This record gives sequence, structure tokens and C-alpha cells, in this order.
Amino acid sequence: MINVSIVGASGYGGGELLRLLLGHPQAAVKQATSRSHLGEYLYQVHPNLRKRTQLKFCDPAQLEPVDVLFLALPHGEAQKKIAGFAGLAGKIIDLSADFRLKDMALYEKWYGAPHAAPEWPARFVYGLPELHRAEMAGASYISGVGCNATASNLALLPLVKAGLIDPVSPVIVEIKVGSSESGAEGNAGSHHAERANVIRTFSAFGHRHTAEVIQEMGLSHVSLTMTAVDLVRGVLATAHAQVKPGVTTKDLWKAYRAAASENPFIRVVKEQRGIYRAPEPKVLAGSNYADIGFELDESSGHVVSLCAIDNLMKGAAGSAVQCLNLVMGWDEMTGLDFPGLHPL
Amino acid sequence: MINVSIVGASGYGGGELLRLLLGHPQAAVKQATSRSHLGEYLYQVHPNLRKRTQLKFCDPAQLEPVDVLFLALPHGEAQKKIAGFAGLAGKIIDLSADFRLKDMALYEKWYGAPHAAPEWPARFVYGLPELHRAEMAGASYISGVGCNATASNLALLPLVKAGLIDPVSPVIVEIKVGSSESGAEGNAGSHHAERANVIRTFSAFGHRHTAEVIQEMGLSHVSLTMTAVDLVRGVLATAHAQVKPGVTTKDLWKAYRAAASENPFIRVVKEQRGIYRAPEPKVLAGSNYADIGFELDESSGHVVSLCAIDNLMKGAAGSAVQCLNLVMGWDEMTGLDFPGLHPL
Amino acid sequence: MINVSIVGASGYGGGELLRLLLGHPQAAVKQATSRSHLGEYLYQVHPNLRKRTQLKFCDPAQLEPVDVLFLALPHGEAQKKIAGFAGLAGKIIDLSADFRLKDMALYEKWYGAPHAAPEWPARFVYGLPELHRAEMAGASYISGVGCNATASNLALLPLVKAGLIDPVSPVIVEIKVGSSESGAEGNAGSHHAERANVIRTFSAFGHRHTAEVIQEMGLSHVSLTMTAVDLVRGVLATAHAQVKPGVTTKDLWKAYRAAASENPFIRVVKEQRGIYRAPEPKVLAGSNYADIGFELDESSGHVVSLCAIDNLMKGAAGSAVQCLNLVMGWDEMTGLDFPGLHPL
Amino acid sequence: MINVSIVGASGYGGGELLRLLLGHPQAAVKQATSRSHLGEYLYQVHPNLRKRTQLKFCDPAQLEPVDVLFLALPHGEAQKKIAGFAGLAGKIIDLSADFRLKDMALYEKWYGAPHAAPEWPARFVYGLPELHRAEMAGASYISGVGCNATASNLALLPLVKAGLIDPVSPVIVEIKVGSSESGAEGNAGSHHAERANVIRTFSAFGHRHTAEVIQEMGLSHVSLTMTAVDLVRGVLATAHAQVKPGVTTKDLWKAYRAAASENPFIRVVKEQRGIYRAPEPKVLAGSNYADIGFELDESSGHVVSLCAIDNLMKGAAGSAVQCLNLVMGWDEMTGLDFPGLHPL
Repeated sequence: MINVSIVGASGYGGGELLRLLLGHPQAAVKQATSRSHLGEYLYQVHPNLRKRTQLKFCDPAQLEPVDVLFLALPHGEAQKKIAGFAGLAGKIIDLSADFRLKDMALYEKWYGAPHAAPEWPARFVYGLPELHRAEMAGASYISGVGCNATASNLALLPLVKAGLIDPVSPVIVEIKVGSSESGAEGNAGSHHAERANVIRTFSAFGHRHTAEVIQEMGLSHVSLTMTAVDLVRGVLATAHAQVKPGVTTKDLWKAYRAAASENPFIRVVKEQRGIYRAPEPKVLAGSNYADIGFELDESSGHVVSLCAIDNLMKGAAGSAVQCLNLVMGWDEMTGLDFPGLHPL
Repeated sequence: MINVSIVGASGYGGGELLRLLLGHPQAAVKQATSRSHLGEYLYQVHPNLRKRTQLKFCDPAQLEPVDVLFLALPHGEAQKKIAGFAGLAGKIIDLSADFRLKDMALYEKWYGAPHAAPEWPARFVYGLPELHRAEMAGASYISGVGCNATASNLALLPLVKAGLIDPVSPVIVEIKVGSSESGAEGNAGSHHAERANVIRTFSAFGHRHTAEVIQEMGLSHVSLTMTAVDLVRGVLATAHAQVKPGVTTKDLWKAYRAAASENPFIRVVKEQRGIYRAPEPKVLAGSNYADIGFELDESSGHVVSLCAIDNLMKGAAGSAVQCLNLVMGWDEMTGLDFPGLHPL
Repeated sequence: MINVSIVGASGYGGGELLRLLLGHPQAAVKQATSRSHLGEYLYQVHPNLRKRTQLKFCDPAQLEPVDVLFLALPHGEAQKKIAGFAGLAGKIIDLSADFRLKDMALYEKWYGAPHAAPEWPARFVYGLPELHRAEMAGASYISGVGCNATASNLALLPLVKAGLIDPVSPVIVEIKVGSSESGAEGNAGSHHAERANVIRTFSAFGHRHTAEVIQEMGLSHVSLTMTAVDLVRGVLATAHAQVKPGVTTKDLWKAYRAAASENPFIRVVKEQRGIYRAPEPKVLAGSNYADIGFELDESSGHVVSLCAIDNLMKGAAGSAVQCLNLVMGWDEMTGLDFPGLHPL
Repeated sequence: MINVSIVGASGYGGGELLRLLLGHPQAAVKQATSRSHLGEYLYQVHPNLRKRTQLKFCDPAQLEPVDVLFLALPHGEAQKKIAGFAGLAGKIIDLSADFRLKDMALYEKWYGAPHAAPEWPARFVYGLPELHRAEMAGASYISGVGCNATASNLALLPLVKAGLIDPVSPVIVEIKVGSSESGAEGNAGSHHAERANVIRTFSAFGHRHTAEVIQEMGLSHVSLTMTAVDLVRGVLATAHAQVKPGVTTKDLWKAYRAAASENPFIRVVKEQRGIYRAPEPKVLAGSNYADIGFELDESSGHVVSLCAIDNLMKGAAGSAVQCLNLVMGWDEMTGLDFPGLHPL
């Protein structure tokens, strides 16, 4: 049993961490901080936690030493305070974008400003177990993952790992997202009357998570096009790529099945009947699974690869807890056994 | 052809007024004011108006004299400036709560503060044509109506007018509402991720629109219980009352049919087959109809009376334009012919 | 560790039972039947179960003896086959309406036909632990509960148990429900384009679950008015009743807190700040909690009591598994620890 | 004033035609047929038409001669009966897929069977005024348009017409659609509990509307990927193409503005501020507008072109009425002036 604390626990990523860690058989939640909800019960902000904990949000200045510290701060804040946090815990698992990118030039290009602690990102393992499982055992620092990057990377992983796609052809990833992705802070466009019923392509190019796909997949010609739809939780990435000449559907099946057999949270969804024939975030709310699937047009070599996740789970807090398990040497699925709901 | 201007046109009520008046064959929209969107094209805020008008929002200080002035300000503002507005136009149609209540004690009880211009409300006709049509011909000042009050009043109108309900028994009106009802200004609870998927009883007692039901229906024992659901436009009032001994379903049919035949925008919906057997706001978005219906438990005398409206139309801008038509002596339905959509 | 099987496992109640029992530490799922999906993998119908089980739906005729048999058949079927099922398992937990009502006259009145096995209902404990916990220890037969009846009964329980409401005044329960309540079989009105965006009062009086409120609460003047809203999972019951003279808010607080302290799955939600001030099904999807709350108009004695549940959990499969735990003498919360999601 | 009748008027396309034609100042609706709803009032199926018409659905065998006959039958039926329909009216406007494709080999490839009346398609003008306006004046036969084809064709029109895109590079159109697109007949996957909250890529390749993009845009390497989202009305096409070397954002602005100035129902939406910066179907429900926009990555030449429409309006009934206006020599916008709603 270890002690953990969560910094920035009133946001959606922090709330999901709380849910998972309060239910984790090997972890005890010691403190949870929030400046905006200081002194409130956790369950007043996260109503699902009522009767599960009597903890109140405390001030970050009151943080005490702990085994593992989780950071769920707005992007840009953790990098300013990382040295202080490192003094409180030997192991840090971050959820923000601050320590994901290893090349500081790439960071500056996509985030528009120099990194405040450029020596730190290299100390962090990129926080997607499906890509860096081996490096996680015993690691001290784990970065967050972008939810859209995760859906994209897991859609492309089987193709890239098996060397099936043409590295020169551009890869177009069309991403559809729910409203929780933009966080707990509202804005004019997130007002329900404006945000309901949308199909809103809010970014054709240039989403920051693109940098994580470039870094992790080693692809240079990749674009993410972002469309908001009427859903709270969930991301679907539909990636369009070109396979190398001669690649067949059978080759793809092999690659996708390998991904599922090597990773407990990856499932292949490719059915000929029924309602749920392809990956869909609808069935993943609250679960840490990443469902992947594909279709190949053999005549043209155009492959469509799909990945569905819950952006707050596999795309944020779920992967973070999975990383905790790997760092500590526990079973990878500990505390992450909720399978999602049908129907929802 | 008359000139009209709209004060406070960037909100939802104001936007709906703009849509209706820009399409009205007898009215020309001269000015539309908004402090927060000063200088922007109307269509930048109300995207449905693109290619329909090149008007920009102007400052209220720049308002010019006009035949009819529509006020769509936040509650409390119009009463402070009414004398000035009256200097600009011989006829004023307000959408706010400022001039609805005639008894200043009732106003103060429900709005928590004395009225800033207590001599004015009595000059205004309460703006629901179904209740005050005769007084509207040639009137100078017309008040707004509360959307929930309108759904309640029209649910109760056939019963009250025909003297069918027991005036002593309490009347309980259960009201379900969409998110546009709370206006264009967001708050923490209107953030999509928090507001989607709700069944949220946000007011068990004490909603301010209750006062309009007390005033217009002459009922003293009436309560409105408000529940927000996942919808943008629409109100359904489900009113529970006790009929007088001996009142039958046939009596009710007669009263409801009379309401529909006397009022072009009232329809009775009470079918034995099909999907749409009772009033539903789903089919009313953008329309000025009020659909009413009922069920009577003859054994107990418990009647359930229903009224569905679009809160921004019959519950606000649609009734206001209907009032304009009556004030000017035009056909009551002018410019209000959109029938709603199926499906939506 | 016991063996369990589920009859009628392709519906929504059966699917939720499968999710819970596959994750239950003390139960092993042996068989799951479905005539319409015979031979299919469970996960082809319930996509959340992919990678959790390799079981296929089998024919009910192939059922083998088991410790506990769960029945999730359409209403009316279990009563015809109950003797056969009783030959397969010493303990049966049913989800249908077939064994809920104890008075066969009441059954016939509300279900419109005589019961096919009138000697059986009396052998079943009504399946709501909050009402019949003591009788469940070691019991052989447990009935299902109506989801709307459960929301109504738990809204009324604190008031009735403490004797706070006037038994003569009519009790009006306004119930708002999601679409999963009507089951996995579609109909014209459940087609998404017709069912989305609804506020549809589909039953003013006469919903069959009323009989369970009459039986369990001992109330005679009670009506349930049913309104469908745009949500998949969830029920909110808003009950209107009259308290006895002199009953205060403080009395109510005491009664509601007692209900929460006596029942691990009952929580009182009554906050003065924040977004989630009253019970809401939005935060309960997948959870077995029943959130209750109230408002009292002390001047009139009109009390509004609220209860929110997930209709497939506390209103069906969750209560059934809670009953299993009580029947077996296990901790009541075993396998029911999922707290729901925020946001969703 | 002309007489029109509608064959197959109980579906969604037929219902929308009814709404438009009942409100059209130059057309009188004489008959509306439906086999499944024979003898019912139109408003029992299309509840928005209550109090607008007392017509009942009649049998197609009872059709009388008329000036213009609208056909809204399921695909495949009109081609079998076209000779008979042609005997009833000199002008026919069809909504189905039966007469859209001119090359019978292309038809057979995409529809999987030979055409039943192969001499007829050539007599029909393809029913999108933005592509065939000149041919429509006085024409006798007008075909329907696929809603997804229309969104795709109008997204690509400015690029193709101005010769800005590389004709060799593949064009990938990602299309997101609401549930009304699949028609009024439900299926297992359209059941609300299964269809709500989806992001469901149901067709990666091979959607039949692709053939209309090939035919009308003259593109050979084009694919349509279809994703269903939680919305009733609306289509958004996000088209990815490669511009020719040297093409700039300025060139694109010119091409898009030209499309808007030549076509009354096309609008360019490309704003730097506000909530509605790009085309969105949310604001188009009930309107005949097609909103288009674009983003160009000048470094790579990758252009993203967007088109939003209401699938039942510009994608079906709205375009059909626009064609009627052009065929009859009336103002193109007659009866199509509803601008959509904000918010919705």
C-alpha cells in the first residue's frame, strides 16, 4: 500500500484520477489540491464520490511528502514547479502536456514558447504503456499523454510497428471528440445551448497533439483534423493512410491482432454483423480500453484505421494509473477493471 | 410598413425577434443594439442570419426614433430606462419580466426588491394574446411573458376558463425545460459536460414565473417545480389539478377544443395512435404554436393537463410578434407561419 | 465461489447482470441464454464485455443446474416456466414483474390478466433490500423491482417510515426516464430521430409500476406520471406529497439521514452550492446508488421528495446482485463498487 | 398556382416536401400517398402539420393528374413505375437515387443490380441547382440528390470549378451525419439507446453516394467515409484534397466567394472570432442553405474544405423545391425562406 496525492484535482482529469485511486487496492489517497475549490468536499465537485471519501480539497502549499505524486494541472504550470514537486515524492506521474515532448524545438514550435524547465522532459517516460511499457518498470517520472494523440497513435500503432504503411504518403487523422476534452472550465462555445447538437470542425490543422504523433510514430506528414460532436466522453480517431504495395487485409489482421495480444487494454473490433462492428467510444465511458479496427481498400491501398477511447481514461487518467501499476511492478490492470456500460 | 428596432438583440430572445422581424412582411428592422457585441455583424452572433442582413449591432445610445421598439434586456434593466425608451417610440413591446406583474406587492415578493418605475406596469398589457387579445388592439405598451408561466397558463386556461377545476385544491405544475431558457450567458452549470444528459430538478418551489400564473389564472395555491432536461429549445408543463365533482372527459374535450378554435396558435393534441399522442416541444422548435392536451382520471377527479411550447417563440419572441400584429391590426399570424420540423 | 446462470441475457437487464456477475469476486457465470442471439458471443451483443468473456449465448433448453439462477425474461414468461427453473437451482433471483405483487387481485387489476402461477409470488421476497433486507438472508426466491417503482419507493421511504406524510392527501410522483427503460427491443417511437430531443409524457396515469408503490408504501392515493426525456440511462422521481401539520425541514433532514445511514447505497444530496445540489441520474450511470433529497414548503406543507437512480442498476440488475449478496450472507456492496462517472 | 402531389409522403423526405409545399405561395398540394399510413391525417405522422392541412394519406392507385408530381419513394421503386407516373404529370421531381446516375454501368457498379428503366435516367436533370441551374428552366424531369453527395459536391465545387485541386491526388471526404439520414424506418442500430451518444464510422468506403461525386465532380480518386453522430438533422462534409502548386489562401477565398455570389443558397463561413467560425449543420435545421468554408496548409498544399447542410433540406426536399422554382421560372428562393434557428 502506497500513499498518493493529486495536485489539481478539481478538473476532469483530476476527478477521474480520484475515482480510480480511491478504488485502487494498493493506493491510499492522502491529499487532493484545488485552489478554486479550497475547503470543499471532493464530492461537492465530483458528485460520484459522495459517500466514498470525506476528503476536502486542500491548498497545494500544504502538500506533504508522499510515495507517488500525480499532477493534473493546466498545461504550463507543472513545468514551472517541477523541482518543488520532485522534492515531495520520488515518483511523479503528470497528466499535462509539459513533459511529453522530448525535442525542445518541437515543443516550442507547437506550444509557441520556450519550455520553462528544458532539462526535465528527458527524465520523463512518455506515458503510454503500449509504446513504452519496458521503460516504465521502476521509472521515477512519467509524462501525460494527449487524448487525441493517444487515439491517433493507437490507430496507427499496428500499421507503423509492422511497417505496413508508406512513410511518404501523408497521413490524415480525422478526430471526433466529446465536450469533456476541453476541460472543466467553460467558455462561450461550451455553453450547452451552443455546444449541443454540434458537428463543429474547430481545427483543420495545427492541433498541438499532432506533435506527439510525430514524436511517437516517427511520421512527418501527419495532420489531425478536429471535430466536436454532441457527446461528453469519447474520442474516435479515423486515420487515413496508404499501405505499401502488396499489403493485404490478411496482413492487417495479423498486425492488429498482435497489438491486442501484446496489450491487455487493446481490443480489435471488426465484426460482420450486429450493431457494434467497429470501434466506438460510446461503449468505453469509464473504461481504459482502446478499441481498434480497420478497413482496407485493396484496389487503391487506402487504409482507414480506427481507434476509440474514453479521453479521460485511456486518454488521461486511466493511462496514468496503468503507468502507476507498471512503475510499481503491479499487474497492469489493477484498479482499471471497469468494462464500460451497454447501453449508455 | 413600419420601422422597428430591437434593444438587447444579442441574447436568445433578441435573436429570435431578429429572425422573425427580418422575415416579417410589414416590418423593417432599423437598428439592433448590443453592448457586448458592438460593431459585430448580427450574423456573427446569430449565424442563421448570415446573408439575411448586413446590419451590425449598435450602441443603445445611438437609437433613433422608430414606430415600435422591442426591448429584450436582462430583467431589471428596462424598468430603469423605460422613460427614455418611451421617448423613442409610441409603441413598446418588452420581453423582460419588468412590466408583467401589475400588483407591486406581488412584484416585490417574487423579485425581492421594489420596482424602479412602479407607475409603468399598469400601462402595459400582459403580453399573452390568448389571455388579453381584446386589449391589444391599438395598445401602446405590451409586456413580455415568462416562458414557464406561458406553458402553465395555457395548460390551465381551458380548465380555468370553463370553471372546471376545484379552486381550493392545490395545483402542481411540473415543468421540464431546455437549456436556452436560461439565456445566452453561460455559467458553471451550463457547461456542456455538466449540462448534457441531465434530469435536474433545480427549483422545487419559488420560481418567479409562478407569480404570473397567480396573476393571470387567479389561482392562489399553485406551485411550479422546474426540471432541466437535455434539450435546447422547449418547455413542457404538466399540470396536476382536481376537477370539480362530476366533470367528465367530455367536458374537458369541449373546453380544450374551444381554446383551439378561439386561438389560431393553440392546437389540441390527444391521439390514440401513432408516436405523437400528446403535446411535445420537440415538434415546436421555431414555431409559435402552443400544443395542449389532457388526461382525466375520472375515478379520482385528478386531471393532468399538458402544454408544450418553444420557450423562445410562444414563450418569448413569438408571442411578442403576435402582439405586434394585434397592436397594429394585422392578421395575428403574420410572419409566424413556420410550422416546426419533423423530425428534429 | 458459486455458479450462476442468466436466462434472457441479451436484453439490457440481462446485459447489466452479466457485467456485474462477470466482475463479482464470489460468482462464476456458467451459462447465459438468448433465443434471438443463440450461438453469438456475449460481446457481440454487449460490446463492453469484449475481452472479458468468451461465453456464447446458449439455448434455455440447455441450462444446467446451478447455485443461483437469474431470470431476465420479458414480463409474463417467467411465471409460465417457474417450476422448471426451480428444478435447476435452489435459489432464483428474478428481474421481471412476475413475482413482485403478492395480492393476485392487485396483479390482475394492473396487468390485465390472471397470474399463470398464483401460488408462486408469495414465495418471493420483494427484491428491494432497502425494504426487505432482513427477509433476504437465506431466502430462496427474490423478485425483481420496477425501476420507476424503486425511484418512487425510495423517494417516499423516509417520509413514510417516519410517518411524516398525510396518508389521505394524494401523492403525485412525476417520473422522468431515459430510453433504456423500455428495453432492447425497438419500436416506432424509439427510433432515434423520433426519440431524441423529446419531453414526452407518455403516461399520465396507470403505469403498472404504480402497483408496487401501493403495495410497498401502503399508499392508496398515489399516481405515477411518466415523461420520457433524451437520456439513455436514468430515472428521476419527483414526488409531491403533503406532510402532517407541524412537520418541519429539520424533521425531514432526520428522516432522510436515517435512510442514508441504514442503507449503504442511499445517499442524501441536498447542497446549497455547486452544480450538483439535488439528486440527478446523470452521475449514477453504472452505479447502484440511489440519491435522495427533498424540499419542503413549510407554509403549505407541500413536500417535494426526489430520488435518482440508474434504472438498469438500482432499478434492476444492481438491486438483484445486492439481493444475491444478502441471500448469500456476503457484504451487501460486493461487486457493486463502481461509483459512477463525472462528467458523463 | 399549380397543383402538385407527393408520392411516398410518410417518410422524412416526403414530410419535408409536404411542409415546404403546403407553405409554397404558388403550389397547392392535391394528394399525398402512403401505403403504411393509408387514411391517416398527414399530421398524425408529421405532427408539425397539425392545423395546417386536413389532408389524409391516400393510396398511390388513386393518384389524379397533376401539374408536378413529386416522388419520395424508397430507392428502387420509382424506376419500376416511372412510365405510369409520367402519365399523370408532365413534370416529375424525384427524390430517390433512381435517376441520378447517367452511366448505367456506374449505376450497376454502385447499386449492385441493373437499372429497371435504363432509358429514363438520361431524361432527368441531376437535381442540384448549383450544378445544373441552366438546364432546369422548363425541364420535365429532375432527379434527386444524395445528401452526402450534395455536401461533398458543394464542398468541392469551388475547388473543382476554379481548377485549384490536383486531379491526381486522392480526395478523402469525411462525412458526419445525423440519424434522420437513414430514413423513417427504424432498425436495430437506430434504437435510441443504441444510437444515442454514438461516434460510429459505419462505412469506411463504398457509400453509394460516392458515385454522384464521381459523376458530378469528374473525380476518379474520391472516397467517402461515413460517421454517424448524435444529431437528428445535419451533414458535415470535411473534404481533404491537394491543391495545385502555388495555389494560395487568396485564390481559395476568390473561388469560395464566387460560389456564394452565384448561388443564393451558398454562404461562406470563415470567421476569426465568435463561436460559429466554420460551417455547421446545427444552424441549418429546416433551412436550404449550404454553408461552405476552408482551411489551407500552404506549406503542404493540403486543403480542408467544409460543407454543412440539412440533409432533409438542401440534401433532399429543399433542393427539390428549389428545382421546382427553377423549372417553373419562379424566383429560386420561393417558399424556402426559413433561415434556421439559433440556438437549437
